[in-house]
Amino acid sequence: MTYSNELIEELTAAAQAAADAARPETLRHFRTDPYTDNKDGAGFDPVTEGDRAAERAMREVLSNLRPDDAILGEEFGAQPGTSGLTWVLDPIDGTRAYIAGAPTWGVLVAVSDQNGPILGLIDQPHTRERFFGGPHGATLDAPGGRRRLATRAPRPLSQALVMTTFPEVGTAEDGAAFRRVSAAARLTRYGLDCYAYGLVALGLVDLVIEAGLQAHDIQGPMAVIQAAGGIVTDWQGGPAHQGGRVLAAANAAIHTEAMQLLKG
Amino acid sequence: MTYSNELIEELTAAAQAAADAARPETLRHFRTDPYTDNKDGAGFDPVTEGDRAAERAMREVLSNLRPDDAILGEEFGAQPGTSGLTWVLDPIDGTRAYIAGAPTWGVLVAVSDQNGPILGLIDQPHTRERFFGGPHGATLDAPGGRRRLATRAPRPLSQALVMTTFPEVGTAEDGAAFRRVSAAARLTRYGLDCYAYGLVALGLVDLVIEAGLQAHDIQGPMAVIQAAGGIVTDWQGGPAHQGGRVLAAANAAIHTEAMQLLKG
Repeated sequence: MTYSNELIEELTAAAQAAADAARPETLRHFRTDPYTDNKDGAGFDPVTEGDRAAERAMREVLSNLRPDDAILGEEFGAQPGTSGLTWVLDPIDGTRAYIAGAPTWGVLVAVSDQNGPILGLIDQPHTRERFFGGPHGATLDAPGGRRRLATRAPRPLSQALVMTTFPEVGTAEDGAAFRRVSAAARLTRYGLDCYAYGLVALGLVDLVIEAGLQAHDIQGPMAVIQAAGGIVTDWQGGPAHQGGRVLAAANAAIHTEAMQLLKG
Repeated sequence: MTYSNELIEELTAAAQAAADAARPETLRHFRTDPYTDNKDGAGFDPVTEGDRAAERAMREVLSNLRPDDAILGEEFGAQPGTSGLTWVLDPIDGTRAYIAGAPTWGVLVAVSDQNGPILGLIDQPHTRERFFGGPHGATLDAPGGRRRLATRAPRPLSQALVMTTFPEVGTAEDGAAFRRVSAAARLTRYGLDCYAYGLVALGLVDLVIEAGLQAHDIQGPMAVIQAAGGIVTDWQGGPAHQGGRVLAAANAAIHTEAMQLLKG
């Protein structure tokens, strides 16, 4: 479906405002020690605190700017709407990275219709990097300025760089399928969470392969990568915006090559 | 051996100046595509270029400020000195992260006597974070300001966060030993290169375990972690400043617990 430029601008502004509102909430608890800060033994959990506060802030912004849209968030579930559009929110994607203090977690925002994300973003509050993608292309906003994003040109899998967050990937079967791709690639790197999808959009990584994802884990990254020229599907080439097993590829050639190996 | 405050200040200034000089050289080639930029097919390799330019810049600074000290660098080897002090330089630690565009590689600088590093640093040019450690303590300089660093208080390994860069760790035997620790820990994360040592100094990670390191890979991180209250040894508790199998721990208790499992 095609949307007016005016609507796209309005949705873009709302997505940016939501991510702006989440930043201070996630950073408030980042790099505080979840154990040593828990001086009263009352079960203080900074991840949950950061998650909830960030999602609350985003919901407030979106309810004001786009009152007729639905919202689906990791922490507070589904709020119905009437516009046919749904905001899909992950206040902290990569909670283990967040706990560890690594700068590779992110705030994920997308707005979708029944076909998947129309536009979305990956925001890394600590590095102040925001990967955005929509109908007018993909950009990275960072302290040094804005740059346009484009995925890599095709190269053989034997020359490719593959990423996933956890070496086990998903089930034993998922892991075996991943390792068929990994064994054929030039280099495999682990542990970057949603930041890995940003690196695909930056044109530096060829493939990200994950399993067991939720809709909120993938819709923001999907919007960014698609707008940068890449492809995001499930491992069979079908829609991935509901999550599950996800294959994000820089281009159609490497997407096809990876999919053949994932099938076994 | 104890050194005068005046000498420590001079060495600190020289280390900071060397890292300052390396930053623009490493950033010049960061997030350029090593393949698509290679338009003339002449074998352009931005990692090697960045490595060499950064080490050259550091050697020039150090030769001017500390002409009697020796220099040992990853790219240009050993230059003898007469002071009894040696600068140990890794212009880009984590070249695979650098190629991938991840913000977890670093520039490592240390100055050592025969007992190991006196002071040193881990610099991440993209995030502009510099972890420094010496006789007067450990600090993190970042865009938001300076903070003092202290490693975590002891907690059982079952509550601990463990990091290593490559899941295979080293040899098959090294990997098996690592997995004994990993299986007993609360959480294991991969892929952060020298940034993981910074997270130990920040008090967020309990253990970093690696194998097959060179002196230039570990002396900067070792200086930072020791100054923040942590312990860095080989897997048997002996000196680690020449590299090899390295165990970096937040405190003596978890160091002992990890070492017992590494021994098998």
